[in-house]
Amino acid sequence: MPFHHLYEQHQATLNAAIEANRTRVFHAHWPEPPSGKIYGETAQEDGLNAFKASLNGPFALPNQHGSNGTIGGEHSPYGFPLNIDYPGYTADTLITNAQQALTQWKNLSLQERAGILIECLERASKHFFAIGFSTMHTTGQGFIMAFQASGPHAFDRALEAIASGYMALNTFAESAQWTKPMGKMQVDLTKEYHIRPKGINLTIGCSTFPIWNSFPGMFASLITGNVTIAKSHPSAILPIALCIQSFQDTLASLGINPHVIQIAVDSKEAPITVSLAERPEITTIDYTGSSSFGNHLESLTAGTNKELFTEKAGVNCALIGEVAQLDAVLDNIAFSLSLYSGQMCTTTQNIYIPKNGVSTPDGIISFDDLCMKLKEKVDTLVYNEKMGPGTLGALHSPAVKERVEKARNSGLTIIRDSEPVAQHGFDQALSCSPLILKADSVDQSIINEEWFGPISFLIPVDDITMGIQAMKQSIIKHGALTALVHLQQEHLIEEAIEQLIDAGVNISCNLVGPIWVNQSAGFSDFHGTGANPAGNASFADLSFVSMRYNIIGMRRP
Amino acid sequence: MPFHHLYEQHQATLNAAIEANRTRVFHAHWPEPPSGKIYGETAQEDGLNAFKASLNGPFALPNQHGSNGTIGGEHSPYGFPLNIDYPGYTADTLITNAQQALTQWKNLSLQERAGILIECLERASKHFFAIGFSTMHTTGQGFIMAFQASGPHAFDRALEAIASGYMALNTFAESAQWTKPMGKMQVDLTKEYHIRPKGINLTIGCSTFPIWNSFPGMFASLITGNVTIAKSHPSAILPIALCIQSFQDTLASLGINPHVIQIAVDSKEAPITVSLAERPEITTIDYTGSSSFGNHLESLTAGTNKELFTEKAGVNCALIGEVAQLDAVLDNIAFSLSLYSGQMCTTTQNIYIPKNGVSTPDGIISFDDLCMKLKEKVDTLVYNEKMGPGTLGALHSPAVKERVEKARNSGLTIIRDSEPVAQHGFDQALSCSPLILKADSVDQSIINEEWFGPISFLIPVDDITMGIQAMKQSIIKHGALTALVHLQQEHLIEEAIEQLIDAGVNISCNLVGPIWVNQSAGFSDFHGTGANPAGNASFADLSFVSMRYNIIGMRRP
Repeated sequence: MPFHHLYEQHQATLNAAIEANRTRVFHAHWPEPPSGKIYGETAQEDGLNAFKASLNGPFALPNQHGSNGTIGGEHSPYGFPLNIDYPGYTADTLITNAQQALTQWKNLSLQERAGILIECLERASKHFFAIGFSTMHTTGQGFIMAFQASGPHAFDRALEAIASGYMALNTFAESAQWTKPMGKMQVDLTKEYHIRPKGINLTIGCSTFPIWNSFPGMFASLITGNVTIAKSHPSAILPIALCIQSFQDTLASLGINPHVIQIAVDSKEAPITVSLAERPEITTIDYTGSSSFGNHLESLTAGTNKELFTEKAGVNCALIGEVAQLDAVLDNIAFSLSLYSGQMCTTTQNIYIPKNGVSTPDGIISFDDLCMKLKEKVDTLVYNEKMGPGTLGALHSPAVKERVEKARNSGLTIIRDSEPVAQHGFDQALSCSPLILKADSVDQSIINEEWFGPISFLIPVDDITMGIQAMKQSIIKHGALTALVHLQQEHLIEEAIEQLIDAGVNISCNLVGPIWVNQSAGFSDFHGTGANPAGNASFADLSFVSMRYNIIGMRRP
Repeated sequence: MPFHHLYEQHQATLNAAIEANRTRVFHAHWPEPPSGKIYGETAQEDGLNAFKASLNGPFALPNQHGSNGTIGGEHSPYGFPLNIDYPGYTADTLITNAQQALTQWKNLSLQERAGILIECLERASKHFFAIGFSTMHTTGQGFIMAFQASGPHAFDRALEAIASGYMALNTFAESAQWTKPMGKMQVDLTKEYHIRPKGINLTIGCSTFPIWNSFPGMFASLITGNVTIAKSHPSAILPIALCIQSFQDTLASLGINPHVIQIAVDSKEAPITVSLAERPEITTIDYTGSSSFGNHLESLTAGTNKELFTEKAGVNCALIGEVAQLDAVLDNIAFSLSLYSGQMCTTTQNIYIPKNGVSTPDGIISFDDLCMKLKEKVDTLVYNEKMGPGTLGALHSPAVKERVEKARNSGLTIIRDSEPVAQHGFDQALSCSPLILKADSVDQSIINEEWFGPISFLIPVDDITMGIQAMKQSIIKHGALTALVHLQQEHLIEEAIEQLIDAGVNISCNLVGPIWVNQSAGFSDFHGTGANPAGNASFADLSFVSMRYNIIGMRRP
């Protein structure tokens, strides 16, 4: 086992990840602060320089062979073109490369694959700052978030997927001596249980979290013996390209076929996702993105040999029913709505509030007063020059801006209007502050849609129980990745939890302080439940890993 | 936890099952010999009497409510009608019953469910002999096989599914205290991870192994918090009805809603399977049966919220390449072909043999001589009055007899002709001995079909490597549950194993003595791989259990 030393080298990392994954306690292998004390005093500057050096030229993938041209076209939401040309590959080339790499990769031991993958992650983590700036300038995230989401948080999600896969593959013995007693005689068989990966994984990335949402599927596939092709979103190529460039360097330096992990780049004008997904050699597909394209993939893969893991759109919801600390609750929600301008798949959209008001330690606050207070909280954050612009970031695409305009013109009462937000140093940034609308129950058709972006609706309900039911029905019909409730009476909390479990959504309750419903922590929070229309996958439960391989038995005397 | 005492009572049984499931060593909780010393001196007679008493009258399901009429029509393959009338239920009644039972069942702890399910199995195991005779007289199996397949082996498969489900659900903690250090402060959250079963399982039974093939899906569903409806095959109702009658008695006696496990009976004239399967409340479906109906179910469930677990048809194959003990090998294969008249989903159909003969310690035996010798071995077994009829059993349906006729008239050379076999005491039994045909490679269209029943083909191939490739291609295209190779040179064994793993089939190598390719041992042999067209399920790997539930996170300060 030539790569066993890498397993030994990373055994403590793996074991700690497995232990955290099992116990679900806090764990972070890579620290989240983008701090010079942790990552080196010049790390940020070096990363920025590396990012700048990658602009306006070709992007080299010396270890991914067979390119037949170049593709590019990214544009920073902060207002400038990246002008990077990536090598392009035909589906045939990508699949031939992948098939050749698969032969070696699947025959490595589980421990070897784990060691190699962690080595890949460790070496790539040296580029966290460059990856962070590239994420900022493709997705529009503020830098701190970009650093965390595409760096430590994404890499921890990868490590989590490795841990889950490792646990699954270690569930059953690799071999056994089977002795069946039969009266005076017996039958002896030697049995082997071979892991047979499904083959080639295609991970279809999204425009907002090009690494965080892609790594779980990629690494779940890799640890279980598959090879992977990461199809990047045409507007967010650079972050994952930097990672894959590094992974391929690592693999090649170890003498492993670097095509174990490939990138597939395309453009909006000439998309290749469908033609790749349709190839019979692609046997697992991970997808993050719109429900419409997700549904199309479902129809493409139905009745085939392909397993499809999805995170599609949903309508996340919250209920403000009873609060113990009104300011803290609204501060928390205001931050949630503002973070990355509401462009997280986990951001709350629909906020249900009893029409007769919300009980607080100081008495009932009316629906309208609550709306005003939330507006003020958002204002306070947005107009805080130190905090606001960095929290909001930029809009990843003009379509979000158009959606905000559409919502403004929907006829609903505007509680808080959206306005441009200056991003220091980036005059051309596409940025706007949260739009908050009041939606009565007659506006069901509006609030039942996902309004991806800084758009939320405050919705009066008859009472707390009706609010819980409204959330439940919405989640069952339209899906959701998150549900937040603010309640104080334990019997109401229990009612909410019971109904929301039934609805199949992850639940946050009474969050205040520096923890937000949008956040999903690796090793502790399963991201997505797979139990509602927002998607069938959950990072990184047993289904997420065990559906990527089969076990083949061999028995002989 | 009111049922915790049952967990404690059966903890040793559960732990031993889990340990065997993990290590894959031999394990049998229920002994397989139908012996008076084990099961009581009068057990066989009592079982026969119980079976006879159930004939010619109504079958009582006192704990399954809402019947709207009776349904029956089973006919023993040994030549008499059973004349049993079972209560019938509408889909609405079955689903309403199931929904009500689900509420209590899903809220029990994992340990409680395990204890209750093992208690159900233990009490039902007291009826092994009645279940055995009822299996014999619905499927046509000989009694010993009927006893084992529907009794100890099936019950061990149920226990295995419980063990796999228990292991899966124990993979991650049920709750956690999550503390995130943030410099001088920290965030504390209490987290809970709730198991949310998918809901109502429908297990669609087959006519040949009405219990063995149904229990894994049923018990995998039950241990993971789902309730189940067992839709029995119209020609093999009694065996599973006896089990479910007992399970419901047990559940009711414990104060649990007995509709946790229901039976659905229909007739060939008025089938209800599709209308049940289409109901949105049915969220998981286990299916054993023909590929055509399985494909129909796949199209029905594509794009829905349903998980479908299948065991469809395949074309099992063998290669006789090199043998160390010619007689032992052919004895073994002759028994495999004869057991239950080839009506096992695991029986070999296509036997590839090098056209220039097979090497033995005594030199090469020619293709034709090998064929003759195999014929003689089958003759010896068939004409052994003590062994033959009981091994062959009866044909479960006239369609099998018609298939034998069709094969006889296919134009292929008959190596061994099929003839009626007398079943002592059952003059009207539908029974015939194995038909063995020689198929040249020009007969691909014939051998690429599944010929379910006592029909096999001896197929000359250029050499061993061509035989391995022929098996591989057949399995990839047409599926298989088993592949058997007889080879001696280690490099050829390795080549065969590598190619057959690629093909995704379970492999048996050089079996001789009292162990046959048809057999699949609970806790040790995963049945089905899920990796070829013969089905997507494997008893009872992690996917088989983990796809039946989701995990819902709840977090609060």
